Amino acid sequence: MPRAVSDGGENLNASDGSGNQALSHCGMDSSGYRVSFPPKKSLLEEFSDTVKDMFFAGDDPLRQYKEQPSWSKRVWLSLQHVFPVLEWGRHYTLGKFKGDFIAGLTIASLCIPQDIGYSKLANLPPEIGLYSSFVTPLIYTLMGSSRDLAIGPVAVVSLLLGSLLKNEIDPKKHPLEYQRLAFTATFFAGITQAALGFFRLGFIIEFLSHAAIVGFMAGAAITIALQQLKGFLGIRTFTTSTDIVSVMKSIFKSAHHGWNWQTILIGASFLGFLLVTKYIGKKNKKLFWMSATAPLISVIISTFFVYITHADKHGVAVVKNIEKGVNPPSANLIYFSGPFLLKGFKIGVVAGLIALTEAIAIGRTFASMKDYQLDGNKEMMALGTMNVILSDKNLFIIGGFGRSAVNCMAGCKTAASNIVMSIVVLLTLLFITPLFKYTPNAILSSIIISAVLGLIDYKAAYLIWKVDKLDFLACLGAFIGVVFSSVEYGLLIAVAISIAKILLQATRPKTALLGNLPRTTIYRNIEQYPDVTTVPGVVIVRVDSAIYFTNANYVKERTLRWFEEEEERQRQQKFPQIEFLIVELSPVVDIDTSGIHALEELFRTLEKRKIQLILANPGPTVIQKLRSAKFTELIGEDRISLTVGDAVKKFAPKAVDSV
Amino acid sequence: MPRAVSDGGENLNASDGSGNQALSHCGMDSSGYRVSFPPKKSLLEEFSDTVKDMFFAGDDPLRQYKEQPSWSKRVWLSLQHVFPVLEWGRHYTLGKFKGDFIAGLTIASLCIPQDIGYSKLANLPPEIGLYSSFVTPLIYTLMGSSRDLAIGPVAVVSLLLGSLLKNEIDPKKHPLEYQRLAFTATFFAGITQAALGFFRLGFIIEFLSHAAIVGFMAGAAITIALQQLKGFLGIRTFTTSTDIVSVMKSIFKSAHHGWNWQTILIGASFLGFLLVTKYIGKKNKKLFWMSATAPLISVIISTFFVYITHADKHGVAVVKNIEKGVNPPSANLIYFSGPFLLKGFKIGVVAGLIALTEAIAIGRTFASMKDYQLDGNKEMMALGTMNVILSDKNLFIIGGFGRSAVNCMAGCKTAASNIVMSIVVLLTLLFITPLFKYTPNAILSSIIISAVLGLIDYKAAYLIWKVDKLDFLACLGAFIGVVFSSVEYGLLIAVAISIAKILLQATRPKTALLGNLPRTTIYRNIEQYPDVTTVPGVVIVRVDSAIYFTNANYVKERTLRWFEEEEERQRQQKFPQIEFLIVELSPVVDIDTSGIHALEELFRTLEKRKIQLILANPGPTVIQKLRSAKFTELIGEDRISLTVGDAVKKFAPKAVDSV
Repeated sequence: MPRAVSDGGENLNASDGSGNQALSHCGMDSSGYRVSFPPKKSLLEEFSDTVKDMFFAGDDPLRQYKEQPSWSKRVWLSLQHVFPVLEWGRHYTLGKFKGDFIAGLTIASLCIPQDIGYSKLANLPPEIGLYSSFVTPLIYTLMGSSRDLAIGPVAVVSLLLGSLLKNEIDPKKHPLEYQRLAFTATFFAGITQAALGFFRLGFIIEFLSHAAIVGFMAGAAITIALQQLKGFLGIRTFTTSTDIVSVMKSIFKSAHHGWNWQTILIGASFLGFLLVTKYIGKKNKKLFWMSATAPLISVIISTFFVYITHADKHGVAVVKNIEKGVNPPSANLIYFSGPFLLKGFKIGVVAGLIALTEAIAIGRTFASMKDYQLDGNKEMMALGTMNVILSDKNLFIIGGFGRSAVNCMAGCKTAASNIVMSIVVLLTLLFITPLFKYTPNAILSSIIISAVLGLIDYKAAYLIWKVDKLDFLACLGAFIGVVFSSVEYGLLIAVAISIAKILLQATRPKTALLGNLPRTTIYRNIEQYPDVTTVPGVVIVRVDSAIYFTNANYVKERTLRWFEEEEERQRQQKFPQIEFLIVELSPVVDIDTSGIHALEELFRTLEKRKIQLILANPGPTVIQKLRSAKFTELIGEDRISLTVGDAVKKFAPKAVDSV
Repeated sequence: MPRAVSDGGENLNASDGSGNQALSHCGMDSSGYRVSFPPKKSLLEEFSDTVKDMFFAGDDPLRQYKEQPSWSKRVWLSLQHVFPVLEWGRHYTLGKFKGDFIAGLTIASLCIPQDIGYSKLANLPPEIGLYSSFVTPLIYTLMGSSRDLAIGPVAVVSLLLGSLLKNEIDPKKHPLEYQRLAFTATFFAGITQAALGFFRLGFIIEFLSHAAIVGFMAGAAITIALQQLKGFLGIRTFTTSTDIVSVMKSIFKSAHHGWNWQTILIGASFLGFLLVTKYIGKKNKKLFWMSATAPLISVIISTFFVYITHADKHGVAVVKNIEKGVNPPSANLIYFSGPFLLKGFKIGVVAGLIALTEAIAIGRTFASMKDYQLDGNKEMMALGTMNVILSDKNLFIIGGFGRSAVNCMAGCKTAASNIVMSIVVLLTLLFITPLFKYTPNAILSSIIISAVLGLIDYKAAYLIWKVDKLDFLACLGAFIGVVFSSVEYGLLIAVAISIAKILLQATRPKTALLGNLPRTTIYRNIEQYPDVTTVPGVVIVRVDSAIYFTNANYVKERTLRWFEEEEERQRQQKFPQIEFLIVELSPVVDIDTSGIHALEELFRTLEKRKIQLILANPGPTVIQKLRSAKFTELIGEDRISLTVGDAVKKFAPKAVDSV
């Protein structure tokens, strides 16, 4: 009966034998089935499967080609793959353009003040921020796969870059070297990202857990906000370190004389304005444009105000000069040798990865909102190429898609909105920049503060707390690390906790003692089901995870402990002497040599005590490996049973009857 | 019907619903059952459970106390826990002593030459090796929990220590500083081990996979053997680096003039003798004493031979002077400050961990052979304390239990055999050492070579190759790293590959497309079971692992891809439009916020395409977390089905009929 056999065999693959148990329970006896072995794969097959699953799992870029017969089509597809613009560009209409145009204008008005602020976060001259918003969108429009994402510098990456660079060079003393290092870092960040994308190693950014990111972002937001207090309170002498303690110190030190009431007045009033508009925009989606345009409006108003009142004469710090015109090339500025090469490389890799993490996270959210697959690896290549180009275009690392929400709400249709934006920024650079001369820093500070406050996702933090305490610990650790020490340190904590969590999960799998559900042949977790009954003379343990070297010994010891405890309990209940230990392997998806070794040790230990080891329902991979390791011969094929029910029926029939 | 409900609920916990499917299949309808929620634990309970499972899983030292009512008994037990000697000492008999005495003598005769050789491996004066075999057994007898383990220096750790120390200080130029650093390292190795044991962090040594260890050991063995060629060929000028290339170079450079034929003659002949006896001992267990005593015999004979022939005058290098008498204290020599403190600390930690790994591995083997539980953490404390004491007793790190096999075969009954051995060594130190003056180095080399050859476990390597190719890669990597670069580098590779493997396993879980087994309500992996049929209008995917941040996005994307491929296939078969995606969560033991996030994204994506997402058979932890994350409300309680069968019956009844 082929079906029955395959059914029986497959039952191994399924993670529970109760199917057959129940079948046998209602007449159809499963004890006739034998444990089936899946066909053995050749080494090459095995290898190629592994590689495929490793790198081309979620998204197989070659899939579409296979389906394509003609070569010309394939070339065209691969071109489209690299430059998605070819895809959406063909069906571009005027109607779409209208949406894109408005969206573009909106983002531009949002990004111009932000860019200036962000470049200050990275201790770089303001115009560099503006350059970025003019160059990057153009490139992204060509290469990016996501239509809603509006690219530009992001606060956290700018801050990270700034604080990393500051450790190497003092931006005040050696501004040029500092900029050069910034470009070098940007260059290598780009290389890193592109390489990750190209070699399809995108998944490594997933080692940063969601929880850790939430904590990290919140911490970064607070740090940034604190940094802004300098401009907001008009403090002249401010600490260079970013931890909350020293920042607070320098604020209170300067409380008596250092603060400037005009600055505070301006900053506070406009911050209020920004927050209110933001709130309105959130409440009423139709009025979102208020929050989007508020920054530019407040910049214009405040600049004008300062200009007429000459407030800059009364100690209100202003932006002063912003370089007019387009950015010069800066490839020649990149360090390709000397001590700064390595430093730039390190900083680039770190900042680049963070930028990726944030970018991809946001990208995915939008992809699932608008329902299309975001090819993470392609995105990385796009971002990477962009940053490499930027490093020549006199720019610093581009984080990601902070403005996408606005772009999206502003009703963008295609990535063309990016083009509109960049043109607007270009015009600004060419003609309007001089007017920013009188823009008070306080405004920029307020704009940044109101922007980063959105990064504090307390809802997510609360959810994490409810769902998983260990996750919350990671979240908290990252947060505290950033706020009380430094961005890079907090990042380190975040990564460390994330990795540690994976490793812990790998070392301590769940195990359960099983009992019989009265009037069935189903065996269930005793701790969860008070009404299951133990089978006299038999101990049944289930292992709830793959058995690898990390947990092999634990599984062995835990199983033995279950056995001893149960043995003790049954002795007290005057049950017959234990003769069998049944280990249910249903959930064990895989096993390695250490795992098999542990099973052997378990077997020998039991042998000494005259206890028989019986394996119930091993999966196909497991049974295959057990066989190739000759373990099946060691304990005897007949000791490997299809289901726990069968095992009990076969080896301890009296016990079953007595139940 | 409480039983039925719990049965239904439990079915969630089991990793497959086929039980109920089958029940329903034969009349007992499971569709009445609802997904049950396990009782919510308080934060404290949750925490204590995690901690308990983390640190006191395999072995709960407090267990026995709980059972003990009287305080005096508890104190006595805890004393026994720290000093097992109190336990076996009470039932010690003359009969046991006989066994121990012979065993002790045998190991002594084996270890004396080995110790001298091993201390040469660590570039330390020979007597230090002897001291170790005299002091350590005494301490271990008191503290060690394993009765068969014979403790003493081991080749690999000595080599590792030697090469690590050599990087810091040149043993030739500054012998004293070198020794001091060695003691410092030993001290910190002890501290590390004891700390790990005390804080029950023993499991961290399990991050070194079995495969990696096999490769590392084999590589170390070859490296050691190569090092011995210096003494074996009587070469004067020899490279200090341990990699095979430079060793071979310096051997062939010295081929013409550097080799000394008398030395080679002696070495070769005795190596032959050793290997033959070893072979005999392996073949015939009764004659094992031949292999055990062979080293001492060959030392005596060769020493005598050299003495009468004055071979040392003809360029046969000899041990020269070994310090007579017992070792002076050396605590004052340990660096507790200065630059060498940190270096000593680092070396100590590394060497200490390796020593642990080897010791525990061997210890476990014996424990399972003789059937008793080896408390890993206790062993660590014992080893640690020992090393700390040693660092004062003018000694270097003790690896582990290399000689246990001999000890065991020599018929030891209790750890007392260690005492006998140490007394023998003591006597040797006091009276016989001067005689070693004429022992040719060639003999020591041959002894070490024949000893380390046993470390090359080609059988294990072959097994690993058969069972798991990725494991074999780790094995090979460690091996090549050690042989072609250096011990520490090989170690690094071993650890790196091991960790990488865990992380990869965490990122790429298995997923499967399920189909219906004709004439049943059981759903199975389509790729494995050719005769399963797909359900028209429905796609069923099973996730075979816990969903964590490392694999959350992968699982989402892979599921979507399964969905799209299947959708395409069904469209070609002119099947009705797909309406449902059923995700079987049976094997999903746990989920975290990222996982839930991914499910939400999946849900939204499907929503856009008018596809309904149905979850089948989530485990208790999973359903609890889904609920606390309000995901159940999002997709609707009724969308969470007990089994795949139920889901299909409920949402696509026509499909089932058509099957």
